Amino acid sequence: MEMYRFGMTLADQPPAAALVFQTLLVQGPLTRAEVGRRTGLSPGAVTKVANPLLADGWIAELGRPAEAAERASGRPAVPIAVRAERARFVGVKVTGDELIGVLADLTARPLVTGRAALRSRDVGTVVLAIARLVAGLRADAGAERDGDVHSIGVTISGDVDGQTGIVQYSPFLDWRRVPLARLVEDATGTPTVIENDVRALTVAEQWFGAGVGLSSFALVTVGAGIGCGISIGGRVVSGAHGVSGEVGHLPVGGTDRVCTCGNTGCVEALASSHAITEQAREAAGDPALTMAGAARLAHGGHREVRAVFTRAGHAMGLALATVANLIGPERIIISGEGVSSYDLYEDQIRSTFATRAFGAAADCDLLVRPLPFEEWARGGAAVAAQRLFAPPK
Amino acid sequence: MEMYRFGMTLADQPPAAALVFQTLLVQGPLTRAEVGRRTGLSPGAVTKVANPLLADGWIAELGRPAEAAERASGRPAVPIAVRAERARFVGVKVTGDELIGVLADLTARPLVTGRAALRSRDVGTVVLAIARLVAGLRADAGAERDGDVHSIGVTISGDVDGQTGIVQYSPFLDWRRVPLARLVEDATGTPTVIENDVRALTVAEQWFGAGVGLSSFALVTVGAGIGCGISIGGRVVSGAHGVSGEVGHLPVGGTDRVCTCGNTGCVEALASSHAITEQAREAAGDPALTMAGAARLAHGGHREVRAVFTRAGHAMGLALATVANLIGPERIIISGEGVSSYDLYEDQIRSTFATRAFGAAADCDLLVRPLPFEEWARGGAAVAAQRLFAPPK
Ligand SMILES: [Zn+2]
Ligand SMILES: [Zn+2]
Repeated sequence: MEMYRFGMTLADQPPAAALVFQTLLVQGPLTRAEVGRRTGLSPGAVTKVANPLLADGWIAELGRPAEAAERASGRPAVPIAVRAERARFVGVKVTGDELIGVLADLTARPLVTGRAALRSRDVGTVVLAIARLVAGLRADAGAERDGDVHSIGVTISGDVDGQTGIVQYSPFLDWRRVPLARLVEDATGTPTVIENDVRALTVAEQWFGAGVGLSSFALVTVGAGIGCGISIGGRVVSGAHGVSGEVGHLPVGGTDRVCTCGNTGCVEALASSHAITEQAREAAGDPALTMAGAARLAHGGHREVRAVFTRAGHAMGLALATVANLIGPERIIISGEGVSSYDLYEDQIRSTFATRAFGAAADCDLLVRPLPFEEWARGGAAVAAQRLFAPPK
Repeated sequence: MEMYRFGMTLADQPPAAALVFQTLLVQGPLTRAEVGRRTGLSPGAVTKVANPLLADGWIAELGRPAEAAERASGRPAVPIAVRAERARFVGVKVTGDELIGVLADLTARPLVTGRAALRSRDVGTVVLAIARLVAGLRADAGAERDGDVHSIGVTISGDVDGQTGIVQYSPFLDWRRVPLARLVEDATGTPTVIENDVRALTVAEQWFGAGVGLSSFALVTVGAGIGCGISIGGRVVSGAHGVSGEVGHLPVGGTDRVCTCGNTGCVEALASSHAITEQAREAAGDPALTMAGAARLAHGGHREVRAVFTRAGHAMGLALATVANLIGPERIIISGEGVSSYDLYEDQIRSTFATRAFGAAADCDLLVRPLPFEEWARGGAAVAAQRLFAPPK
């Protein structure tokens, strides 16, 4: 129970403590003066909030400075850093047919990982499978006492309310209003938070990935759906009504393909893996063609199937240009399962993006970055760690 | 010189002082405890940063509290507030043929206003006209000494770099790389900042208008161009490369109308006042038709001209839905000259928005709000006041 109790203590700290802690988590080790410079807090304020974090073992001083520097400045310039081993978290990503889990330290570094197949999408089955996966990860990590895992972060695609812990709607699991956080907490005995999977991955990228140090970035994921997380000024945009980053249903043209949302011309209706497979089946006249088969045909020079990828690339390029024109991020990270056939439409994505990005918005860096599902699960651990300072109400 | 000197002092205050001051500016008067609650600062930190602001006259205590309350709490609960009369600012909005100016107090409340026609778009002519307008406003307000106006904020549409004070590109003035801030500063002898006009108006709405108290909102302006300012968490999004809120060139469909940017299907190519007038001329077979004339024809039931407004409304609805899906703002404020014929396409805007906003994003409040050019000029004064704490480098 020790860790959870300290977690409560941490949540009672002033907001400046969260700022100092997160700055050290992402940018540390740093001297107190440097923390002050980066957070805009006075040296006195940094010292004041750092002291209880030091006392509780959340951060530590890294050795002593050279005596000369100490004498010159009149105060010690000891770097401080987050103690990664201070708390452990489990992150679980739920897909339609599988769970992917990691048990990670305070910096979301995975210590052990595991996967479990889902035999059914029934809520009870999924919750039980999560509890078993968590128990397995604990055993593998030698962390079998309750308090040895601070909290669990479960991520899932769809409309997920992280504050109430309720999955409002998950299309591919066909869940509506499932109080998933409470159910997993009951089944595991460990505090649990939930989050939309793309937003959780965006938090992980912001803290530990290709978003570190950027004033703003977007993460666009291409797969069964097309998702987008947006980070501005170090915070992931959540949307006043719970919706943000919905690039999948931007109207990018054409009326020939009806989207799952009922509209036509949506990005998802042209560029999701399902949409590409379906269009390639028509183009090749082969109703059993898979996505991998479609990619093989396109690589082999099949003109009509290549055109399907080109059209998907054009839709993606328009979507990325829309994000760049509205938000002006420093970088857009492109990831997801769809990235495996990215070479088939990358040229079209980049040329459409260059044509439609307005003025200097075209300077935005487009970075393709394969992120395996373990990275998504790590996002769950990052979200759980983030809640150290802002527990759900 | 007195005010400018104190302005420098203010810029040297710690970031917490800016937070306290801006909270008081927008939400005041408040007790110190309430300021602490709203900023997340400790009571001690609030008192510490408030003291020099009190000493310099930027804020003041509003009378004494009841003695009972004082005795009960052990410390006085005196509300503090910004002293609006402490500094004055001039805001100027530059259009293609006119300058609109206000001389305002610290809360951007206009004390006097004025307009001046522009006989030419030549840089020298415009700068001279700005200097004359500023001098006129000063005389009207009885503020003729140099120090009586703290600073000037000039706003202009286009790619404006507020940090360097350079207008990178203004299409309708046909300016490129004009160091406008320095030129106005030289001509007036008063420190000058510049900003994109829509962003400046967004700052004014955030501080004093329909954006007060919202976690996020967008401001979409319809006129010769279609602009958008985005405010998230109390900050106007500026874009890593200077571009943000570019809704005018979102691809909303159709290939029949070529936009000024060279692409087809842009929102501006369908819904700007120029685009509506041009399409209405074709529809009515009258090459001299004005926007007002087009609106009269549409009100009179001219079917083809009505269809032009409906198509513009559809394009606007798609643009607003895109903003809602990506950012999830609490509210979208719709303003600009185009609002005068808003009744002609409001139904179409709302129905397209409802169809294309994804899930709960449709809960976003659409608020139509006429904002005369004096409000835009007030945005310039707000941007100048904002720089009290963050002067351009
Ligand atoms: Zn759709
Ligand atoms: Zn355009």
